[in-house]
Amino acid sequence: MTENRSPSSFLRTIGWEDGHVVILDQTRLPGEQRDVRLRSAEDAWEAIRSLRVRGAPLIGVTAAFGLYLGMVEALEHRDADLADELERCIDYLATARPTAVNLTWALHRAAREIAPFVSAGRETVLDQLLAFALRLLDEDIATNRAMGTHGLPLLEGKSSVLTHCNAGWLATAGYGTATAPLYLMRERGYALPHVFVDETRPVLQGARLTAWELSRAGFDITLICDGMAATVMDQGKVEAVIVGCDRMTASGDFANKIGTLGVAIIAAQFGIPFYVVAPFSSIDFSLASGREIPIEERHPDEVRRVGSAVVAPDVPVFNPAFDVTPARLVSAIVTERGVITPPLPEGLDRLRRRTEQPSHQEQRS
Amino acid sequence: MTENRSPSSFLRTIGWEDGHVVILDQTRLPGEQRDVRLRSAEDAWEAIRSLRVRGAPLIGVTAAFGLYLGMVEALEHRDADLADELERCIDYLATARPTAVNLTWALHRAAREIAPFVSAGRETVLDQLLAFALRLLDEDIATNRAMGTHGLPLLEGKSSVLTHCNAGWLATAGYGTATAPLYLMRERGYALPHVFVDETRPVLQGARLTAWELSRAGFDITLICDGMAATVMDQGKVEAVIVGCDRMTASGDFANKIGTLGVAIIAAQFGIPFYVVAPFSSIDFSLASGREIPIEERHPDEVRRVGSAVVAPDVPVFNPAFDVTPARLVSAIVTERGVITPPLPEGLDRLRRRTEQPSHQEQRS
Repeated sequence: MTENRSPSSFLRTIGWEDGHVVILDQTRLPGEQRDVRLRSAEDAWEAIRSLRVRGAPLIGVTAAFGLYLGMVEALEHRDADLADELERCIDYLATARPTAVNLTWALHRAAREIAPFVSAGRETVLDQLLAFALRLLDEDIATNRAMGTHGLPLLEGKSSVLTHCNAGWLATAGYGTATAPLYLMRERGYALPHVFVDETRPVLQGARLTAWELSRAGFDITLICDGMAATVMDQGKVEAVIVGCDRMTASGDFANKIGTLGVAIIAAQFGIPFYVVAPFSSIDFSLASGREIPIEERHPDEVRRVGSAVVAPDVPVFNPAFDVTPARLVSAIVTERGVITPPLPEGLDRLRRRTEQPSHQEQRS
Repeated sequence: MTENRSPSSFLRTIGWEDGHVVILDQTRLPGEQRDVRLRSAEDAWEAIRSLRVRGAPLIGVTAAFGLYLGMVEALEHRDADLADELERCIDYLATARPTAVNLTWALHRAAREIAPFVSAGRETVLDQLLAFALRLLDEDIATNRAMGTHGLPLLEGKSSVLTHCNAGWLATAGYGTATAPLYLMRERGYALPHVFVDETRPVLQGARLTAWELSRAGFDITLICDGMAATVMDQGKVEAVIVGCDRMTASGDFANKIGTLGVAIIAAQFGIPFYVVAPFSSIDFSLASGREIPIEERHPDEVRRVGSAVVAPDVPVFNPAFDVTPARLVSAIVTERGVITPPLPEGLDRLRRRTEQPSHQEQRS
């Protein structure tokens, strides 16, 4: 079936190759680029759990492949009940990272889309499960390329940008979210901006992942500590900031990796445009403001330790995984459906109505 | 002679005890609190070079003790020329950290103050060298206590403050600079504010040193990553920011540990007062603005590595040791001579004239 398709695809995070599911083991980055073959639902569960794959879209795609692998194995026993096994396998995979919204979303969508085929027998279900996983992979790439296409004009002609965390190729099936405009520029032969990469403490996704993937793709980058962003902006070295988004509200307030709020405040202070790249699915119209977004607190050892090194005494630590940036600091939101500029609440609402209208009408006709 | 004197002295970074120079080996913090005896100028040189002692004031005091130890050794040879040995020893100690302004300042002041005694013979010179080192130690503590006294009213009644880097007790002979108001509050039985401590990448002085000394002194603290400061301020958890100062200009612009500028911008955004504690000696009235302050760039491995852990691929790194915060973001400057509020250039100039006038008059009379 589909291979890794785009000729400009410089990196495969997950793929279906010669009849096997292959992932890039991200726990070995940046030291080593090693592929791992997933042979079972257990392998997929472990890959998600131990962060060999990470990033909401990539977790979803991995879970879909894991469901296919799990059902291949389950249906080797000729007496297995198809519907029961499907449910068991979905429930199992959902436990890999219970708080990853995209994981359960992908599995529930699989259940919904496979349901009509259950009566058609084993082979059909397996074919459909594989087709679903590949469709999810293709959709993710298509969504990201669309965000890249919409975001590209915002970065065109800019000599330098700054990004925080990893909303990159490695978090997705390809292109990334915040990085999608950059990779599109590369694919289309534009002059590439220099990229300042915040290391993004405590988990260092910027240093370990973004710096790795962008430099490997041929970008000139400079890695900085988070506390250096203000200085590079003050020195006039940054012409735009571009970040990803974990969850956005109807107001345009959004949650993203801890440290984003500070970057946004500092960028505003220096009059530097601040762009958020958000798949439309990450906009939660049921939330009126950023104050309603629950923020996960993570283990103090993420702050107290780096790798095996203990960097702090045994003192109390505050370790929120995300912060919330208010809409007033956002210059534009880039989605796969288009770009929204302030006032954001009206823009978000308009884009939703405009882009959802046709499908509603289709359903009615 | 003088021992570690204040009954509230909870920590000795350097001292003269039972006829020996003793330092706290700061390279072992926060894991271990171990003292080291300095027996020679070489020991002092090595302690400064390898950061067993650090912080401008403490380096100066250590160098002064090193000079005494070196001369004790040199003058054991009865044919040694006193003036030659003094010069040789000063030149040698100055190489321990060539960019540390306070190191050469302390050694040159020693040379100047000892000069009148050189003709009086060996014993007198050694007595005077030891007296000088102890005087420097006392003066540093007195300066810091004076800054603490002036700064205390700014923090009184505040339930929480945030600090960046280590402008603490460990950087001085006692009390620290930015921490001096806090330690004075402790000494005088005030209600102590909760202290948020930025870890301060890349060298993590906040995590390793400030978190250690404040928690050891009985403060309730919370350690955060630098990128979390905006969130704790946004949540209303910070009522004042207090930081140290490496070098201030006549305008009130000042250089301090990298990351300070971002903290100042974010604090201003949330209307949180931002206080700088600066010994008057750190104000360079020959510089008109912060743009004139040269900024040291340090080795990329400070960013790429944490302890033995490699956290980033081999990519270009920008690693400025300091940044420059403009005067307009400063709510008040605390010096040992008093507190200056905006407009800072006028305030700094007025304080200089007022506090230097008497000595000029004395000289004239």
